[in-house]
Amino acid sequence: MSGGDEFTVIRDVMAPLAHHPGARDLDDDGAVLTVPSGTELAITKDMMVEGVHFLADDPADLVARKLLRTNLSDLAAMGAQPCAYLLGLASDRRRGREWLEGFARGLARDQEEYGVSLLGGDTVAAERGLLTLSITAFGEIPAGMSFARERARAGDVVAVTGTIGDAALGLLVRTGVLRGLGKSLETGLVSRYQLPEPRVSSGVALRGVVHGAIDISDGLLADASHMAAASGIAMELAVEAIPLSDATSQAIHRDPALRDRALCGGDDYELLVTLTPGDVARARNIVRRCGTSLTVIGRCQEGSGVTFLDDEGSPLYIVDTGWRHSVLAAGPLDQGH
Amino acid sequence: MSGGDEFTVIRDVMAPLAHHPGARDLDDDGAVLTVPSGTELAITKDMMVEGVHFLADDPADLVARKLLRTNLSDLAAMGAQPCAYLLGLASDRRRGREWLEGFARGLARDQEEYGVSLLGGDTVAAERGLLTLSITAFGEIPAGMSFARERARAGDVVAVTGTIGDAALGLLVRTGVLRGLGKSLETGLVSRYQLPEPRVSSGVALRGVVHGAIDISDGLLADASHMAAASGIAMELAVEAIPLSDATSQAIHRDPALRDRALCGGDDYELLVTLTPGDVARARNIVRRCGTSLTVIGRCQEGSGVTFLDDEGSPLYIVDTGWRHSVLAAGPLDQGH
Repeated sequence: MSGGDEFTVIRDVMAPLAHHPGARDLDDDGAVLTVPSGTELAITKDMMVEGVHFLADDPADLVARKLLRTNLSDLAAMGAQPCAYLLGLASDRRRGREWLEGFARGLARDQEEYGVSLLGGDTVAAERGLLTLSITAFGEIPAGMSFARERARAGDVVAVTGTIGDAALGLLVRTGVLRGLGKSLETGLVSRYQLPEPRVSSGVALRGVVHGAIDISDGLLADASHMAAASGIAMELAVEAIPLSDATSQAIHRDPALRDRALCGGDDYELLVTLTPGDVARARNIVRRCGTSLTVIGRCQEGSGVTFLDDEGSPLYIVDTGWRHSVLAAGPLDQGH
Repeated sequence: MSGGDEFTVIRDVMAPLAHHPGARDLDDDGAVLTVPSGTELAITKDMMVEGVHFLADDPADLVARKLLRTNLSDLAAMGAQPCAYLLGLASDRRRGREWLEGFARGLARDQEEYGVSLLGGDTVAAERGLLTLSITAFGEIPAGMSFARERARAGDVVAVTGTIGDAALGLLVRTGVLRGLGKSLETGLVSRYQLPEPRVSSGVALRGVVHGAIDISDGLLADASHMAAASGIAMELAVEAIPLSDATSQAIHRDPALRDRALCGGDDYELLVTLTPGDVARARNIVRRCGTSLTVIGRCQEGSGVTFLDDEGSPLYIVDTGWRHSVLAAGPLDQGH
């Protein structure tokens, strides 16, 4: 690593981020966290590996922000208010001070945006290997108020924030597979891939309203399947009801095969929630006040598995990326988040 | 990865470890931790990378136990009682179900030994890269009772648990560099490298007695330097007073150059603490009841830096592994822990 002893560099670059009162030093792996009485600590840990979760030449600040945001998305799916995080960084020495400074700049920006602080961490320099990043993020939630994937109930409606599929198509644009949508739409899709918007404020605001909740990282089909399996219920989702951005709608209009990619591609970081039908209007207003939308896309019933229905109510077979899932018996699929 | 879909395998193998009430599922990155009133949460995060912190062919159960133990050692250095941990595992698919089962067996054994439970985590499979492991460990400590590296005071004596240098020489045995000590001593040294014994019970028992504390992971010289710098004091350490095992004593007797390796090699996971001279007898009894020893090796005074003194009180120059540190101005040196 150029520009000074590598650990000194990491300390210099990262230390300004660690302004949490419990953060002792980025090198001092130990940190102390005080949890207010009546509050539980929500904890999540996500790793990201070069070539799996981001591209080797993605800008450093965007890699940092995506790393932090994927963890904040997990906290959002529990209804927790993020407060602090630990950073692990294993690098192979190809990345120098400039890269690290960009990485820290990205973290600093999102620390401000989401009100979180670096609490500590660990860094490793290896001779070779892939850049491997790990964040453990902490959020606060009133005791007993967290939601979870296993709390969907038969009779609930299923709803989703924002739009689905943009990040998956953004990756196709980014890698040159999807072209011809025009600069503006393409840039928007890539941005959704590189810089997800975790639904933190919606998650907090939906406390006490939703039953089951999960953030969509592995794809709508996979994460709906996770929730259905964990809750011991079946889900029917209406494909026509699934909210799509203009860019994704246009792309699917031009190439209908992209529909399945949108439903299965992942990296959406939207919230998939279930709730009592009578609470939909309230939940929709809550989420709208948080700056996004909430769209009902299906319902939960007795049984198991996730079924996508077409506009005539007939089951559709969805082709997952790399796997074929029967929509009637879609099993869990985890791509690392 | 052989023997079934890799994520199913990881879930199957790891799920039995996650018996903590706040652990929802190893795949569900989210977990919930309740912290008793009046208690602070001590948090540490250590990464380990193949080829840096362990050898690629080290037994899976020992890799797992070392990973967990290095984190518990950080908690010990804060005086915290370990309770739970998160696991991150990024693997390149070379390691199959058998390896994972060995890894889980090691974790299960140490969960029992140290009274901790898996709370959640994340797993990533990459096409290539090095096995990269990350643990975030949690411990409880009465509010305001944690100790830290920056709390050493001029006038304190410096003491260390157990013996120093065994792990560093164990690595030399393990890699074939050090030979001829005899099977029994060599096995003992390798064991100290592969399976450190974090001083968890000593750490907890020393609450209220010690001022500064750090666990020795980077080597006695480096970690003493870390503590001196963080506390704004100078340390004088008497080389002859540093406690050595029979194996390390014999090795140094045969090859005096190994002394510096012992003092700088790291991976000791002993506690380096400072305390009021009048508290030494009490602290020694406390640590003895925890099954190890506490040895006074020096003192803190006004100034900066760490000085090793020979038995006539003259400064000694210590040759660090790969770097040369002036003993009068030893800077921080971090090898990843």
